[in-house]
Amino acid sequence: PPSRLPAVGTTIFTVMSALATETGAVNLGQGFPDFHCDPALLDAVDRAMRGGANQYAPMAGLASLREVMAAKIEAEHGRRYDPNTEITITAGATQAILTALIAVVQPGDEVIVLEPCYDSYVPGIVMAGGTPVRVPLVPGSFRPDFGRIAAALSPRTRAIIVNSPHNPSATVWTREEMLQLQALLAPTEAIVISDEVYEHMAFDGAHESASRFEELAARSFVVSSFGKTLHVTGWKVGTVVAPAALMAEFRKVHQFNVFSVNTPMQQGLADYLKDPAPYRGLPAFYRQKREFFRAGLAGSRLRLLPCEGTYFQCVDISAVSDLSEADFCQWLARTHGVAAIPMSAFYGDGFDQHVVRFCFAKKEETLSAALERLQRL
Amino acid sequence: PPSRLPAVGTTIFTVMSALATETGAVNLGQGFPDFHCDPALLDAVDRAMRGGANQYAPMAGLASLREVMAAKIEAEHGRRYDPNTEITITAGATQAILTALIAVVQPGDEVIVLEPCYDSYVPGIVMAGGTPVRVPLVPGSFRPDFGRIAAALSPRTRAIIVNSPHNPSATVWTREEMLQLQALLAPTEAIVISDEVYEHMAFDGAHESASRFEELAARSFVVSSFGKTLHVTGWKVGTVVAPAALMAEFRKVHQFNVFSVNTPMQQGLADYLKDPAPYRGLPAFYRQKREFFRAGLAGSRLRLLPCEGTYFQCVDISAVSDLSEADFCQWLARTHGVAAIPMSAFYGDGFDQHVVRFCFAKKEETLSAALERLQRL
Ligand SMILES: CSCCC(=O)C(=O)O
Ligand SMILES: CSCCC(=O)C(=O)O
Repeated sequence: PPSRLPAVGTTIFTVMSALATETGAVNLGQGFPDFHCDPALLDAVDRAMRGGANQYAPMAGLASLREVMAAKIEAEHGRRYDPNTEITITAGATQAILTALIAVVQPGDEVIVLEPCYDSYVPGIVMAGGTPVRVPLVPGSFRPDFGRIAAALSPRTRAIIVNSPHNPSATVWTREEMLQLQALLAPTEAIVISDEVYEHMAFDGAHESASRFEELAARSFVVSSFGKTLHVTGWKVGTVVAPAALMAEFRKVHQFNVFSVNTPMQQGLADYLKDPAPYRGLPAFYRQKREFFRAGLAGSRLRLLPCEGTYFQCVDISAVSDLSEADFCQWLARTHGVAAIPMSAFYGDGFDQHVVRFCFAKKEETLSAALERLQRL
Repeated sequence: PPSRLPAVGTTIFTVMSALATETGAVNLGQGFPDFHCDPALLDAVDRAMRGGANQYAPMAGLASLREVMAAKIEAEHGRRYDPNTEITITAGATQAILTALIAVVQPGDEVIVLEPCYDSYVPGIVMAGGTPVRVPLVPGSFRPDFGRIAAALSPRTRAIIVNSPHNPSATVWTREEMLQLQALLAPTEAIVISDEVYEHMAFDGAHESASRFEELAARSFVVSSFGKTLHVTGWKVGTVVAPAALMAEFRKVHQFNVFSVNTPMQQGLADYLKDPAPYRGLPAFYRQKREFFRAGLAGSRLRLLPCEGTYFQCVDISAVSDLSEADFCQWLARTHGVAAIPMSAFYGDGFDQHVVRFCFAKKEETLSAALERLQRL
């Protein structure tokens, strides 16, 4: 039988993590912390399990966790989402994005993605029956090119997926860029899926959530991730917020995808986040890691690109090697013991700019071990 | 914009659990235990979390848990699935079923379901772009009608979803029925999605897994659930096994749906299940609950239907009420304080046979409280 996703192989993150394991390379490829979360969060989950919170959560998520998220978003971005009708807890951000796509995309619809982009977006559009329309970010700066986005809009544009802070480029959209997006979409009926999983890693200014902009919020699914924010990427718990009419469609799909999300994790998160203190130190925590990693690369032949947000640092490899990004990453892991991700993996056509991505969500000793090897290049 | 699932409302399980909460009714509706799981399982998860197993699991699931499942299936059903290529850990059985559907169904394909059936199957087929073909089980006995299934097969039949032990009817397919299914499908290319989440609740004979039958196994996704088996329905962890070629397509979709599944739960399950002892007492445990519940209804005006498996007991309400099943369930919760599920909710056309379903996965005191109320009908 024909494959539903003939073009799809195994995600680059799985491939590079396997290579890191095989070669013993320091794994700065797949994005995940190698340090521990706050033990108080584990205590909260343990209490939830021992208290018997082990049966189905409500389909939309535990009311307590939805309330915590409503309060968080209101405090940070000034918009009140109704926990009953506008907030759903998901099995991670990837599930939220696919579910939103299936909920709104009809066969024949177009969905715009801005390349480079996270590797689930395009297969997600295809699985939803839609047609991906790829618009490049400006090469070099990786900023949105609103002229090209405008040119890509058509009467069949059903949605656009945006992502800031941006994986893999580490750019963060400014308030002006968000306003430009809002203005551009005003005459359209396009839905926005705003992937904001790196929201607490914006270093040089505020994270401009789509939920801050009245007209944008009215057409947006805003996706966030407890795993990325609280150093527990393996828990696979996220949140999506959207106006009630969009959320009603989302939940129809969600209930027949995963039905509901791990109950003890939800209750533990709700208890732990009643006081929002855990969010406060995050930008400074990751800024410090960014500085450490950038300083460590300063004398090397890898040229640093700007890093405005996320826990990723991109570098230009031109001075080191003529290899393609993908071959460079193989070579780097095998001969120098550091795993990275080629930026070409985030483009449908494998566009190669001699840029690779490192994850700096690591202990200083891990970063130091990698830096020592990278200095030798 | 048009709805992707216009016919879909909120699942009956959510509706009836909400009604139970609102009315204070004893909740024998939605299927979940009201007793605790083995504390040793919680200890194992806690150890996993404290040990730092909180980052992404491999996309296919932790190797240790896949190995445990391979050994279990081999011991129980005599078939060895390769943990590397034929076993994937899912965010529950519902996610496994939708993911399998998206993986194999192309627009225009037909998928056969046997009604009454679990309420995610038909929307899942629609979301995958397929056309549901509904074939009734024999009214009254709820056994498969192979003549009608044969008549429903067409060159466009891409898959058939089967479910034994069967929710909601509590029938269990015999070895002869499984052989008939195998023979019927032999000349076709139809895939089987075999939902076996109640595998450890087969009371009167063996559970005849699709994995026991060579030719059936070669075309089947077999789906199971840790939540149902180990009394932790809220954990949302399941397993799907299939031949490597089918599993490769499954994983393409899985990795862009949820990517991976909660790591500490997976590791806790793997540790806890290294010794398969927890499975051993299950049929006897649930058989005892079945006997208790059936004995308690014996003198009532609700007529018991057979219960060969699952943790559900169906009853005919004709002697008590002329109301539709759905209205009866509303009335029962509101005026007699017991929540049940109308069997009509498992049919696309709401076919009404004066049958409702009770869940007996409850503490004896819960069952007793319900029985006292049901005796008064
Ligand atoms: C889900 S694995 C990928 C993690 C991640 O977001 C990344 O490395 O880009
Ligand atoms: C996922 S909620 C429904 C639980 C269940 O399987 C049932 O009650 O039939």
